[in-house]
Amino acid sequence: MTNPSLLILPGDGIGPEVMAEVRKIIAWYGDKRDVHFDVSEGLVGGCSYDVHGTPLTDETMELAQSVDAVLLGAVGGPQYDNLDFSVKPERGLLRLRKEMDLYANLRPAQCFDALADFSSLKKDVVAGLDIMIVRELTSGIYFGEPRGIFKEGNERVGINTQRYTESEIERVARSAFELARRRNNKVCSMEKANVMESGILWREVVQRVHDTEYPDVQLSHMYADAGAMQLCRWPKQFDVIVTDNLFGDLLSDAAAMLTGSLGMLPSASLGAPMANGRPKAMYEPVHGSAPDIAGQGKANPIACILSFAMALRYSFDMGDEATRLEAAIEKVLADGARTGDLLGPEGGSPISTAQMGDAIVAALDASL
Amino acid sequence: MTNPSLLILPGDGIGPEVMAEVRKIIAWYGDKRDVHFDVSEGLVGGCSYDVHGTPLTDETMELAQSVDAVLLGAVGGPQYDNLDFSVKPERGLLRLRKEMDLYANLRPAQCFDALADFSSLKKDVVAGLDIMIVRELTSGIYFGEPRGIFKEGNERVGINTQRYTESEIERVARSAFELARRRNNKVCSMEKANVMESGILWREVVQRVHDTEYPDVQLSHMYADAGAMQLCRWPKQFDVIVTDNLFGDLLSDAAAMLTGSLGMLPSASLGAPMANGRPKAMYEPVHGSAPDIAGQGKANPIACILSFAMALRYSFDMGDEATRLEAAIEKVLADGARTGDLLGPEGGSPISTAQMGDAIVAALDASL
Ligand SMILES: [Mg+2]
Ligand SMILES: [Mg+2]
Repeated sequence: MTNPSLLILPGDGIGPEVMAEVRKIIAWYGDKRDVHFDVSEGLVGGCSYDVHGTPLTDETMELAQSVDAVLLGAVGGPQYDNLDFSVKPERGLLRLRKEMDLYANLRPAQCFDALADFSSLKKDVVAGLDIMIVRELTSGIYFGEPRGIFKEGNERVGINTQRYTESEIERVARSAFELARRRNNKVCSMEKANVMESGILWREVVQRVHDTEYPDVQLSHMYADAGAMQLCRWPKQFDVIVTDNLFGDLLSDAAAMLTGSLGMLPSASLGAPMANGRPKAMYEPVHGSAPDIAGQGKANPIACILSFAMALRYSFDMGDEATRLEAAIEKVLADGARTGDLLGPEGGSPISTAQMGDAIVAALDASL
Repeated sequence: MTNPSLLILPGDGIGPEVMAEVRKIIAWYGDKRDVHFDVSEGLVGGCSYDVHGTPLTDETMELAQSVDAVLLGAVGGPQYDNLDFSVKPERGLLRLRKEMDLYANLRPAQCFDALADFSSLKKDVVAGLDIMIVRELTSGIYFGEPRGIFKEGNERVGINTQRYTESEIERVARSAFELARRRNNKVCSMEKANVMESGILWREVVQRVHDTEYPDVQLSHMYADAGAMQLCRWPKQFDVIVTDNLFGDLLSDAAAMLTGSLGMLPSASLGAPMANGRPKAMYEPVHGSAPDIAGQGKANPIACILSFAMALRYSFDMGDEATRLEAAIEKVLADGARTGDLLGPEGGSPISTAQMGDAIVAALDASL
């Protein structure tokens, strides 16, 4: 059997630093668990522009299409702010998402007990929170035509079009139901079927996919505004939430903020199953490239390491190893290890990016 | 000088009960402050259907158009669930909003210190919160054409259209800036100008209205997803938020839930200025008709009384009297008066709807 393949794209800013810690974790799995990956590496974002004049070369795009999973650090930085739109660092990321057709964006909102105090929510509301928002990522109002600013009589009118086909809804619904089966078997679908026809179709199709393919999963429907309320009131009532691109944009960010530790959150973007049964997949931390602290050994590598844990679970079918890695992170945090971003107003002495990575490796050792 | 005119539409369920307490407040203003209103009363919702076969008669609609402000209780109830869509209780409400062209929906998110424990947020995050969300209410994706579910090749597609003209944005922006001048002089406008052309136009027009008409007001812009985050993180950073129909739907409900006391919140829906300079206006509590407790004297009248306070401030230019009324409510709550909905898990003995109204009148007396 061949090893699973992984393309690492560290990117810009703190990307390379946090990715170096992921490499320690990957090495540990080879040494101690006999779990090996064929790892390749490439450039994306500003660092690719610096070398190749483009934020993503065709060669790297091709490589991304051929591997089992892509793990990306972060892209962007102030030195690229004035580049032409077509070669901005973010275009590299968007090209990956688009050409790999990554339609299901998985945004976990997890709260480690040790960090619950960082939330604006009361501790009992947020401690132990573990929900997953599945956001449709390649269609909806951010992509629909017609769009633009048009002249109409004496004034202008701004127009965007929300647009979902049955098959677009079906495939992201399947992603959500598959996920729920690996979790607590509950899906809540959110739309505005009370006032939007696209929401009526969304609800109908999600229900049909459920009834015909996933009758074992518990399905509920909620209007997206009520969903926003319930996320603020008692987020633990949810397991998997599936929603469209626009609602998912707001709800996933609100849910992320509820955890209070935005810099800790991983994400996955999944597409259709490939010939080997694995989904097209890209994993990346939610945080950005943080140019202000880049190169100083201050960055928190946990979001990137948790993104690798998601790859273990969703691309490589190694849920137990993902759980082991998450538990190691939980233990390190419970023991009090803190990078600078995790220090509260009372202060304390932060450890470095590398020290955090080493602490997680040590906790992995202790897990054996 | 003629008295300002007020049309009271108690509606269904707990509507008449809570409105009876507002009548006590109105009487108090006449007796003790020599502030008089020409009050008329009408039917809306199920009670109108029962008598007239329609949730709103043309006569009542005409009356609503002729008065200075409408104060509505609540509409709906299970006995009307199977009525034809066209005569459902909610249609009465929608007809009022539409024919009066109430384009600016004002949704305050206020948290009384005495009730801060009800919030899922930490007390310091929410105590004393007082922000106002201005939601565009008559245009945007809930109204734009084309809309529907259409056949396209082998499958169906659900379509809705986000659509804003410059003048639609201008008028709601003006509402927000006017409001800010009466408050803390700060407006934050929210859209997704990074991915939506309608958001680009929104931002441009709000900025232009600011620069040409309200340069004294502090204006900022925020992407709506970041806005959702910031509302969850530190809502007190805001004063007035202005946003479109869709984003406002989610953000105003999320903000309301943050206060923890959904049953306490008033709202106003304002339209264009009338000949006398007052805006077309309808005031109503955010809560519904609560048929499960109707007629039992258990309902909390505060949201409806706070809606009348908004009428004092925004229709009748009696901001000082509105503040007096709000302070009276604050005092009553601080003194421990609680209707059943305000009892926490530790219980206690609730007072009745009428007792709460009487307590507020007594606090008004004490304010003199
Ligand atoms: Mg977002
Ligand atoms: Mg709503």
